This record gives sequence, structure tokens and C-alpha cells, in this order.
Amino acid sequence: MITVLAGGVGAARYLAGLVQVVDPAAVTAVVNTADDVWLHGLRVCPDLDTVTYTLAGAVDPDQGWGLAGETWSAMTALARYERRAPEGSPAGSTWFRLGDHDLATHLYRTARLAEGADLAEVTAEVSAAWDVRCRLVPMTTDVVSTRLTPADGSPELGFQEYFVRYRHAVAVSAVRFAGVEHARPAAGVLDAIATADRVVVAPSNPILSIAPIVAVPGIGEALAERRADVVAVSPIVAGAALRGPADRLLAELGHEPSVVGVARLYAPWVATLVIDDADAGRAGEVEAAGVRCVVGPTVMHGPAEAAALAALTLAGS
Amino acid sequence: MITVLAGGVGAARYLAGLVQVVDPAAVTAVVNTADDVWLHGLRVCPDLDTVTYTLAGAVDPDQGWGLAGETWSAMTALARYERRAPEGSPAGSTWFRLGDHDLATHLYRTARLAEGADLAEVTAEVSAAWDVRCRLVPMTTDVVSTRLTPADGSPELGFQEYFVRYRHAVAVSAVRFAGVEHARPAAGVLDAIATADRVVVAPSNPILSIAPIVAVPGIGEALAERRADVVAVSPIVAGAALRGPADRLLAELGHEPSVVGVARLYAPWVATLVIDDADAGRAGEVEAAGVRCVVGPTVMHGPAEAAALAALTLAGS
Repeated sequence: MITVLAGGVGAARYLAGLVQVVDPAAVTAVVNTADDVWLHGLRVCPDLDTVTYTLAGAVDPDQGWGLAGETWSAMTALARYERRAPEGSPAGSTWFRLGDHDLATHLYRTARLAEGADLAEVTAEVSAAWDVRCRLVPMTTDVVSTRLTPADGSPELGFQEYFVRYRHAVAVSAVRFAGVEHARPAAGVLDAIATADRVVVAPSNPILSIAPIVAVPGIGEALAERRADVVAVSPIVAGAALRGPADRLLAELGHEPSVVGVARLYAPWVATLVIDDADAGRAGEVEAAGVRCVVGPTVMHGPAEAAALAALTLAGS
Repeated sequence: MITVLAGGVGAARYLAGLVQVVDPAAVTAVVNTADDVWLHGLRVCPDLDTVTYTLAGAVDPDQGWGLAGETWSAMTALARYERRAPEGSPAGSTWFRLGDHDLATHLYRTARLAEGADLAEVTAEVSAAWDVRCRLVPMTTDVVSTRLTPADGSPELGFQEYFVRYRHAVAVSAVRFAGVEHARPAAGVLDAIATADRVVVAPSNPILSIAPIVAVPGIGEALAERRADVVAVSPIVAGAALRGPADRLLAELGHEPSVVGVARLYAPWVATLVIDDADAGRAGEVEAAGVRCVVGPTVMHGPAEAAALAALTLAGS
């Protein structure tokens, strides 16, 4: 049994590799929900959907998120209203682009939540509808929202405003996960961590994807209990994030944007860090942070590399 | 100033004719909202949208509702979830088909309502976005829901279940407008009735489109005050509804499915009924019901006939 802490695109690609080397039924992904967003009355769960669509083989391969062959009629039509919305109203906003096919997922999820289902149930139904054989579990069914404080003193931003609307081109001085102190792990999360043969931290953004999962009361403690069996893949290669703002955010929040910085951040609950060959020269510093270091190819150019990386993370388990 | 009580397709076509013969800025349409429905978390207002799209020249000309050139990607994608939804859950239902472009209207409206705007404000914004020059006002901003009791004793149906899901192929023993007793007319409705030179009852379903408007406390009374200036167009021609179940419903609820039945139903607050040439032989019976009868062509095959009908309803005003 393998449990994976997962954010979005990087985690989805890792999981797609993992299911090539182990029985998918043995895999549980605990997925970040702190970047969920309510748009036009709909509940949108970007990381869950990216993982689902990727494992279904339906993801847009170029973007790494969204659906292949997507159409954008609803967004095109929404622009008519965006132009006329009252000053300051986010209604009609099209900066977060929801594809027509993708909309169906949000319509279904929103309807089920309104009926009283919780996000874990809906997630199971959505992934079953896509014939995903891994178990996908949201980190919590409670509402947790990543909020970022711009370094220039302008008002706090929601995650998707930061990430999508401003394309993470905003220096940040603080990140918090609003609501996390009252959140409970979703049903199955603590068991999945406690009983896994190995817990893998996917190559996701340490600050925006992994930290909110670990911040849910009970999850960090459960990980620390299993520290010896927790292996992380560094999302930082040669001092840079493969995608997204992880490198900049690490630096802005006072961490070294390197495999060493990641090792120090994860050390309390991670025993092993897989770093890329490009960073082989820093393995000693990783180990000095108290984390065993495995060096290998970590960049997932395609399914073969993803499967090889998955095998590497499981080696010795 | 002309105020029109409006349902869906028939009213929309009448209004499109009316704005050819009077300044659109002089027209207020008070639109039925009792067939509004919440689908997948979105507020859908079929009659308001049909009127808006028609006046915008954007309506699907064959259906008479929805948008011309519509695409259906979201509904196609939703079918995946419908197949897997839990037994009895309406989530994922695709029987009420929302086109991709039309979805934008529901997304915008739902977002604005969630921000605290009322339906009258949102209706004004939506119609402005389509450059509609008439004033469109919902009958109320409160929630009123048409409910139909099947004659076979099966459970009460919501309007859209009856109308769309079962294609009105269900005999009905009772109709009620849930919530109407506590509803207030939307801002502007009573004034529009009180100050109009003429109030027109569009050729809409008397039971399902016009009755809920009249049932809003205050509206029926305001119409009765203006009875001498209220003219209705019969939606029944030669004993049959031009579209929809108005004829059957009238009969099922104990009214004669004819211009005479319509005249009797409207007599307390309508002074003049426009009936089709096909019903000229019944003009005497209409007048015997206490309603002045105007006979002429009422079937709107296209814009020219709609304009002529509008002119006929205004003649003598």
C-alpha cells in the first residue's frame, strides 16, 4: 500500500507513473484542497481534477491540467457579462477559465455537495466516473483556503487570484491556510498514512501544495509517526522549480530554493529525499539536514520517466 | 408606456413584435419566475432568458428558446456523471439541457445573486449585456415555485420536471405556486402596471405563466384597478394551444380550453381579449363573459405577424 501526498500537475504525473509500477488499487492519493475556489457558484477543486483527469488519460497533455480537446464556449459567452458587471464584482470573471467539458465536473460536484454529500464522497464518485482505479481522497472535507500576503502591502490574495489571475508574478511575504486550524482530515486519510508501506510526497510545491496537507491537524503528526517510511521527491531541480513559483516562494519565505532548503523544510517528517542528478553535488548537505538522500533522474518528460521515478521512490521500501 | 405580462416563448415573440411598433424604451415586461429552477447549483430563469435572448435577436429560431448556434459540450460531459450518480440523486441530471453559451448566463446570475444582488438587478444587467432596450422585470425577487399534482396520485412535480423532463405528458389535478403568498412584487412592477397606458397580457400559458404573476400579492389587485386598460391575447386558438400544454391544463383544471375559457379566467382583471380569426364565431360568448372581444390574426409566424398583433393589441388605446 502506497500513500501519496499530492498537489496538482507534478503529483498527477508522478501518480500516472506510479500506477505503471504498482497495482493502482494499492495507491491512495491524499490531495490538497486549499487551492479550491468558488467560481460563479460552483465549487472548483483544481488539484483533485488535475489528478483525476491525468489518471484517466484525459488531461490536456500540453497544459498538464484541464481536459484534452476542451472547448471554451461558456467562457466566451461569459465575457459578455464580464464587460457589464458592476465595478468590483467578480461575477462574470473569466480570468479563471473553465472549459465546457470541465464545467460538467464542477456542476456535478456542486450539485452533490448541495445535496449533502461531502467532498470525499463526491471525489470518489467523480474518480469512479473516470474509471480511476487509485483511491483519491481530499486532505479534508472542511474548507481550507490558501491566502497570500503580497510583499508590497497590497491586500491579501486568494490562491487562484495569485496563481492564475496574476500568474504568480507577485512577491509574497506570508502564506496562510485559512480555516486549517479547525479542519479535520477526511475519512481515510489518517489510516492511509498509518497503514501505508510507504508514504510518498509527490514533487509538488512545498509551500502551496504540500504544506496545507501537512497543516491539517493530525496529518502532520501522523506523518511524523511514519517518518522512516516517508520519501519525498524534490520539486526543485538545480535551484529552480520545474513549473510554478515554488523556487521564488521558498526564497520569499526565507527558505533556500534548493534541494537543501526542501530537505530542511521536510526533515521533521520525511526520512528520504529523492533529488535530481543535477543536484548530486548537494547530496551531502541534504544528508546533513538529517534526510537520507537518493539521487537519480527526477524530471518526468513522459510516462517512461514518470514510471522510473516512481520505481526510484519505492526502491528499498 | 406599455407594460406586458410575460411568460416564455409566446411572450417573447409578442414583445419582439411590440418593439417594432413602439419605442422599446416605453416597454416594461413583467416576467414570470415561477418556473425558475436550481440546477447543479445554478439559478436558471427560463422565461427571463427566453425573453432576453429573443429581444436580443439571439434566440434559437427553431426552438424559440435557447441560443442560436448553441453547443452542448458541458451536457455531453455531464452524462458521464449522470450514469454514476447515486440512486435518486438529481446531480448530473441532463434532462434539462443547458447549452454551453447559455450556461454563462446562469453562471453570471448565480454569482451576482451570491454577492447579494437581487434578481431584478441581475435581470437588468443581463438584459443590458444583450443590448435589450425594453425594461425586463421579474414578477418578484422572492422565490416562487410552480408545483403540479399529477392526477394519478404520484408525487407533486416541480415545473421543469413536468414541463421538460416529462414533456408535460402528465395529467394534472392541481397547480400551486409555492411561496407566492409571501412574495412581494419586484421593485417597479406595481408602478409599471399603475402608470402604463396599456397593460398587455402576452399570449402565454394562462395557468403556468400568467397565473403566477397575477398571484403575487398586490399584482392581481393592481391589474384589477387598471382593468379597463388591460388587454390580453388568447394563447388558445381554435381550442388548442399553439405550443405547450395550455389547452390540456385548462381542461384538467376545469376551464373550457377555448377563448371563452380564457375570457372567463381573465375577466376579473382584463377588459379586452384579442382572439384569432379562427375563433370569430365565439366572440359573442367572450363578450358574454364581460370581456370586450377583438378579432384578428394572432398567430405569429414571423416578425411581421408579431408586429401586426402588437399593433392590434394597442389599437384603441
